[in-house]
Amino acid sequence: MNVEIISVGTELLLGDIVNTNAQYISKELAAIGINVYRQMTLGDNIDRLVRSFEIAFERADIVLTTGGLGPTGDDITKEAAAKYFGQEMVVDQESWNIIEDMCARYSGSRDRIPKNNIKQAMFPKEADIIPNKNGTAPGAVFKKDGKRIIVMPGPPREMKAMFKNSVLPLLIDENPDIFLSRYIRFFGIGESGLEMELLDILNKQTNPTVALYAKEGEVMVRVTARAREEKECLSLIERKIDEIKAISGKYIYMIGDDSVSESQSEMEKLVGDLLIEKKKTIAVAESCTGGLIASYLVDNSGISNSFIEGCVTYTNDAKVRRLDVKPETLEEFGAVSSQTAEEMAMGIAKTAGTDIGLSTTGIAGPGGGSQEKPVGLVYIGLYYKGQVTSIRRVFTGDRRKIRERAARTALNEVRCLLTDD
Amino acid sequence: MNVEIISVGTELLLGDIVNTNAQYISKELAAIGINVYRQMTLGDNIDRLVRSFEIAFERADIVLTTGGLGPTGDDITKEAAAKYFGQEMVVDQESWNIIEDMCARYSGSRDRIPKNNIKQAMFPKEADIIPNKNGTAPGAVFKKDGKRIIVMPGPPREMKAMFKNSVLPLLIDENPDIFLSRYIRFFGIGESGLEMELLDILNKQTNPTVALYAKEGEVMVRVTARAREEKECLSLIERKIDEIKAISGKYIYMIGDDSVSESQSEMEKLVGDLLIEKKKTIAVAESCTGGLIASYLVDNSGISNSFIEGCVTYTNDAKVRRLDVKPETLEEFGAVSSQTAEEMAMGIAKTAGTDIGLSTTGIAGPGGGSQEKPVGLVYIGLYYKGQVTSIRRVFTGDRRKIRERAARTALNEVRCLLTDD
Repeated sequence: MNVEIISVGTELLLGDIVNTNAQYISKELAAIGINVYRQMTLGDNIDRLVRSFEIAFERADIVLTTGGLGPTGDDITKEAAAKYFGQEMVVDQESWNIIEDMCARYSGSRDRIPKNNIKQAMFPKEADIIPNKNGTAPGAVFKKDGKRIIVMPGPPREMKAMFKNSVLPLLIDENPDIFLSRYIRFFGIGESGLEMELLDILNKQTNPTVALYAKEGEVMVRVTARAREEKECLSLIERKIDEIKAISGKYIYMIGDDSVSESQSEMEKLVGDLLIEKKKTIAVAESCTGGLIASYLVDNSGISNSFIEGCVTYTNDAKVRRLDVKPETLEEFGAVSSQTAEEMAMGIAKTAGTDIGLSTTGIAGPGGGSQEKPVGLVYIGLYYKGQVTSIRRVFTGDRRKIRERAARTALNEVRCLLTDD
Repeated sequence: MNVEIISVGTELLLGDIVNTNAQYISKELAAIGINVYRQMTLGDNIDRLVRSFEIAFERADIVLTTGGLGPTGDDITKEAAAKYFGQEMVVDQESWNIIEDMCARYSGSRDRIPKNNIKQAMFPKEADIIPNKNGTAPGAVFKKDGKRIIVMPGPPREMKAMFKNSVLPLLIDENPDIFLSRYIRFFGIGESGLEMELLDILNKQTNPTVALYAKEGEVMVRVTARAREEKECLSLIERKIDEIKAISGKYIYMIGDDSVSESQSEMEKLVGDLLIEKKKTIAVAESCTGGLIASYLVDNSGISNSFIEGCVTYTNDAKVRRLDVKPETLEEFGAVSSQTAEEMAMGIAKTAGTDIGLSTTGIAGPGGGSQEKPVGLVYIGLYYKGQVTSIRRVFTGDRRKIRERAARTALNEVRCLLTDD
């Protein structure tokens, strides 16, 4: 079954509001395995909407619309659908009674119901009317020759309730399969690098489907299986995840059934959970990341027994005073060096008395780079159980990106440490 | 001039992300008087995209696309545009050199550049290439027979910078009227509150237009004037800004001609600039904000002479050890109290030897609140010239929002201090 979505509303075309309806419907449909091949957004213009129905039905079996069901002359979705199917609109008495009741309750009197509200009770007699418990505009299924246009109101609250209670059950009835997804999060490999590794799997995917998503500084893979039974879905997914693990397992840091924090890394949450679970304490000394690591860690509620303190030692003086970094080290190797990073990590762990000391020092740019120490160069120091180590990385991007990537890479070092521990 | 927008990306059709690009572009175009009659969203399918170009050019002069410029086989926007215009794609050596440099810097070696990256350097020779300073995918203007397809990358940060710096100027050049905008940033008032205050102005707007944007914890108003001459635009804008100032002037913290950081506050930049300009030094002691204030300040390049250090003293022990907060104060008034905030601010200024000491202590939630000290309660301490003061605020939102709002409110205190100084 192919579905297209048409969102109607001049306020969308002016960019006054963002189109969350199309996203919501698309996501709900994807979850039950219905393909959406196109979303369109149109203004309140009947001819352009009729033309867009023609375009949509080049491929779609069903067109879902949101918006344009209001009482004013601007609202033309039903009129366009009726015109497209060549059907006549008449007053549906039952709908009108409900609307009258609602308006009367709201305004306190039947005499004050705006006359244009009757527009909201008009439908072709061929249509199935869908009641709206949250507003005055009913929805409807317009139909002719195997094509259907399902019109829903624009306000997200009304639309979602109608979609969930009336439209989705109708579509599920026609689609017996179950769909399940799992999300694999990768760190330390870019989108194109991961694609190269998984090329075979990506090219041969059918069921489960495998999709790659680039996140800020990391990559997510979605594995979605379709079957009659949940158990079968899960076993299909498990086998596919095993295949992916066998190839790129070393970059995987998390597998879950949730993609909640879409645009956001799960790294800080994972490291916070690990620290709490393993009862380890940490202190952080930051130069170029300037408080970002501390701030990521403090995003976790309940972290207060594990995250003991952070120092943003942006100046050399502060590095010496707060962290006991040796002035000779700064002089000989510079503030941006593995030696300084290691002394910072050890210094913060010792003065805070924590199990783990984590440090960053680098050049976030845009100025300050040289041939030998370019913008993006960051040293990350890690102290644990009397041992101190450091890694060297060169990150790309602007100042903000370099700092974010350095902070997440530092947290990833802690993750590796605690996972192996 | 009619423009249609096509957003390309299967993740949009699956509802995994919401299409903020289409909204952003629509809003920017509306501000310069360009009509958008339709937005379309498509997956990564070349034939469907070519068909959608045909449909769009039924009415449009220009089609703007976002997304599908990545290095993988899925990314097909340029290929579809070339196919629609019947043009051949060849490697643009200059673009390839830039991409190679970027990748080499990231991976540390030219040998490890994924081969599929060359796809991002391929364009028809008839196209004008638009450089991308924020990522590896350049944009381009494809053209033939008076029709143009302008392709831009999908990640909002890359797209916005390219749109603002390269695409918008191109469109404005072809529009004989001049459009100028000024952005007024408000702090300490919500969107609906400001809307109520400015209702008259908002209802009567024609030229200049006045648009409200809710930001994270603050509100921005855009005033856009249209005229033949720049001088006339400026005078129209100035008069409108005076009207707005007369009503809501006390909440304004910045008026500028730039909205670059769309989703982002300008507070940290403004405070950074003020510190540098007034040659003041600052140190920060953070409890509930956990490094956010330091991280905001360090976002400013060139801050190293002003921002001396930060301490994330999340535990009572760290407050005592690092900041000389008196144990009796913590015992008598608690960590979340004006007394503790003030001792923290004084302590950090004294140990770091700075002009200004800034501190936060509060309850970010979700747990830990009480009747007397609810979740969202934050004390902000400020030390300057031997004087220490504090303010008390209760912020709403989740843990992250409370922390961000507290951090920006703390910076706003520094702004007020330095502005009055």
